Order: sequence, then structure tokens, then C-alpha cells
Amino acid sequence: MRIIEKISEMQQQSEAWRRDGRKIMLVPTMGYFHDGHLDLMRKARSLGDISVVSIFVNPTQFGVGEDFDRYPRDVDRDFRLASNEGVDVVFLPSSQEMYPEGFQTYVEVSEVTKPLCGKSRPGHFKGVATVVVKLFCIVKPHAAIFGEKDFQQLVTIQRMVQDLNMDVEIVAHPIVREPDGLAMSSRNKYLGAVDRERALLLSRSLHEARRLISSGERNGEEVLRRVREILDSGGDMKIDYVELCRPDDLKEVSSIGSPTLLALAAYLGHTRLIDNCMLIPKE
Amino acid sequence: MRIIEKISEMQQQSEAWRRDGRKIMLVPTMGYFHDGHLDLMRKARSLGDISVVSIFVNPTQFGVGEDFDRYPRDVDRDFRLASNEGVDVVFLPSSQEMYPEGFQTYVEVSEVTKPLCGKSRPGHFKGVATVVVKLFCIVKPHAAIFGEKDFQQLVTIQRMVQDLNMDVEIVAHPIVREPDGLAMSSRNKYLGAVDRERALLLSRSLHEARRLISSGERNGEEVLRRVREILDSGGDMKIDYVELCRPDDLKEVSSIGSPTLLALAAYLGHTRLIDNCMLIPKE
Repeated sequence: MRIIEKISEMQQQSEAWRRDGRKIMLVPTMGYFHDGHLDLMRKARSLGDISVVSIFVNPTQFGVGEDFDRYPRDVDRDFRLASNEGVDVVFLPSSQEMYPEGFQTYVEVSEVTKPLCGKSRPGHFKGVATVVVKLFCIVKPHAAIFGEKDFQQLVTIQRMVQDLNMDVEIVAHPIVREPDGLAMSSRNKYLGAVDRERALLLSRSLHEARRLISSGERNGEEVLRRVREILDSGGDMKIDYVELCRPDDLKEVSSIGSPTLLALAAYLGHTRLIDNCMLIPKE
Repeated sequence: MRIIEKISEMQQQSEAWRRDGRKIMLVPTMGYFHDGHLDLMRKARSLGDISVVSIFVNPTQFGVGEDFDRYPRDVDRDFRLASNEGVDVVFLPSSQEMYPEGFQTYVEVSEVTKPLCGKSRPGHFKGVATVVVKLFCIVKPHAAIFGEKDFQQLVTIQRMVQDLNMDVEIVAHPIVREPDGLAMSSRNKYLGAVDRERALLLSRSLHEARRLISSGERNGEEVLRRVREILDSGGDMKIDYVELCRPDDLKEVSSIGSPTLLALAAYLGHTRLIDNCMLIPKE
């Protein structure tokens, strides 16, 4: 496994692979790998010839007061894990390499970034869209894999790639969960024992929503009420949002007549967790 | 010469050329060709294997009340002229093809787009940056050629390509002028006989500024005063701006100690013309 830190070196390598007709897969990450990341790497290997994993804790997608400084990092461990998965290249640029002095170009996706996390994290998706365009121009992948846990990010990237005519296939990967149901996240490391237990309410509330739908419930308000009730039973948990929306454009919906995204975010102390699931009404 | 209207067809063709190791040159235009455009095409042919000219009057770079609707168009004539220059492909997408319903992604370059034309044409460079990213993703050129008449556009694109790590070389081409000095522009067509004569004051004022510099003048205020004096002698001409700035970041300068851009814009009736030159102090 090769570790590349320079943009120009990565571009030259990718250009050579493309000329050779190799299919390049990219898994963009902020590192501190968990099994969700490793799953994305396995999918990359299965779908292409060359798998590149980028590790970059992107400063422009963190807001003031967010956890950029304390975001967990362990690149040596990440290298070992990626190497075990047969990854070909880890692209590990510095902030200086990605955002040199005078940097002033940003990519914004306007509509799909407004609801959900966009409300409480202004500027977040602008940072995400910008760094993803940069990574696509540097790694030149044929396809890139994104996890569905960051569902709004996935929709944003899909919209951006379509709008800017980027010739990159976006592959979605299902949420990977701990055995007890908690969606995997590098931020789970922040949780103390009590909050780790409380965090189970997120996936449990989604489970209950799916149960309601399968037992015939179609009223959005009723589903949201029940989800909030479960989250509120955690006492100290602060709900950021619980919403039902169309999975393609994230427009809010009030009744569940077709596949509908149920997305939520909550704070446990200083730790903000997100989770989501698709509600699929039968008949 | 082939005419391609579909984005997917253009991308497939370009991808095939790239795999064959052909060097693709792009000349992005809004059509209604003059000798300046033809010069760009000749340069494209001389620098690469494949020359693609795009013709697209980009609605997102026109402001409310600007001349999008009446911008001169004559694609049949353009096809003949491009064909005569040995152009390989004219890429001619529709607005619907470029901006389908739901389009919502924009690219913004923040600093270099603020002065000069950015002041009087808010949103213009956002439209330019966005469409150029799209064209680069569609045509996949190794290099693209831009005329120096739109100097701020050139600086904006250079900055954007650098910031987003787009692997496209930006080639600048000098302003092409009519025999009497008027910078070529598709908008010159708007000028009646009186305004066409008056328009000569733009290039004459630049000429006078260069004369002042070569005779030792280094005081920016003095140069600007003299340029404005010449433009004002046209009576009905309304100056939009006359400015001196650093050619790399377009920051205003007050004295001319190194190569300095002198840029101006003026209205003759409803027609807005721009021109510029480099002032290069010797010793």
C-alpha cells in the first residue's frame, strides 16, 4: 500500500492508471476507521481495479465551536487497517496542501443542503461539496463510495455531481451498525458509558418507526411523535431534529405513501449523533 | 467537423480521445465569432491534437436587465468559420441540457471577483465559474484557452482551477484588435456609427497610459486621471470603472512599480465595453 501526500503525485498516478484502462474507486474519509469504513473499502475493491482511500479531516466543513480540533485521529492504525483491506493508495494531504494561502473557491449546493443538518450546521455542506470536488479532481476516480449514515451528504454529492456534470459514479453504501444497533461513527468514541447506552435510543426509535409503518401507520405526525417520545425518554438527550422527507430532494413530507427518509440528529452532552432509515410502506 | 449537442456524447468522445493519448484543447465561447475567437482556435490547433470549441450563451452569467436575450447569435456562420479553422468538434448544448430542472450547484471564487466588473455585474463570475467547471467536466480538456480581453475572467478561472485542483492548463491569449485599435467583441455589433467611433477612446486611453509609463510616470492617480480625461472627451460615454491593479490577484495599486493591469469598462448607450492593457515600467 502506498501513502501519497502530494496532490500532483496523486494526479499523475491516477492519470497513468486511467490511461491503462484501470477503474479507480475512491473512498473519501476523515480517518479514524471503524468497520463502516472497512466495509466501504471492501466494496471499493470489489467494484474496481484500484482502490484509493483519502484521509483528510477537512477544516472547511467544521463550524465555529464544532469538534475539528478534537476530532479523533490515528493514522498509523488507519494505515494498518487499510493495508489489511488491500487498499492500493491512502491519499493523506495536509491542510496546507489542500488549502494554501489565497484559497477562495467554494462549491455550494443550495436546496438539498437547507433542511436537516444544514439548519444547525451552516456552511457544513459547502465545505463538504468543495473538498469532494477537489478530491475528485485529484484522485480522478471512476466511482466514489459514500455511506448512507450521512444521508444528506450523499444526496448533496449526488446532486452536485449531476449539476456539475462530473463523470464520477456515486455509490451508496448502507449504514453499518454495532451489534446493539448504534450506527458506527468515529464520533462514538466521544461517548462515556452512560451516553453510549443512551445513544441506543436513536436506532431504537428508528426501529419503532419501521414497526409502526409495517403495522399500517401512514401519518407522519404520529410517527414523528412516537420517535421523539422514545428519544425524550433518554432524559439528557437534546433532539436537534427528527424529520420525514423525500429521499431524492429531502423535501419534507407529512404522510408516508412512498419510500420516505426518517432522519434525526441529537446531542448527548457535547456529542452530536445522527442516524436515519428508510420507511417503506407496503401496499 | 462534428457538432455535438449532448453532454453524455461529448464526455464519451473525450474519454475515448484521452485513452488514445490525444491532447484535447478547449476554446469556450458564447459564439458569434470574430477574429479574436478564430485566433483562439488557431492556437488550440497548434497546441493540441484535438480542438473543441463550445458555443453556449450562458444564462447564469447575465444579470437582470443585461443583454442575454439580444446577445448576437449566428450558429450557421459560426459552424462555417470553425470548420474553416480545422476545429474537430463544436459543442453546442441547449440551456435545458446544461441547466435541467432542479439545478442548484454553483461555484464561487470570492476575492478576485470583487473589484472591476464584479462590482457592476453581481453574480456574473459565479455564472462564469460554474459553467466553466461544467464545460471542463464535459469536454475533459488538457488545456483551455481564454482571451485576455476578459482579464478578470481569466484570473478567476486560473484561481478556480488552482483552488479546485482541476487538472486543466489555462492558456491566456492576447487581445485581438480591429485595425483601428478597438478590442474585438461580439458586443461591438451593438454599436451605431457614432458610438463605434467614440469606442476608439477606450484603446486610445490605454495607449496614452502606456505612453505616460514609458516616459517615466509612476503615479497611479496621474495615469488614471489622464485615462478618465480621454474617456470623458467622448461626451456621452459613461465610465463604469478605470482601475490599476496587480495582475495576479487584482488588488488595487496606487503606483506602478511592477507590471500593472490597467482595466476599464464604459457604457456607450446601452452597450457596455471593456478593455485593458498591461503597464510595464522599465527600470
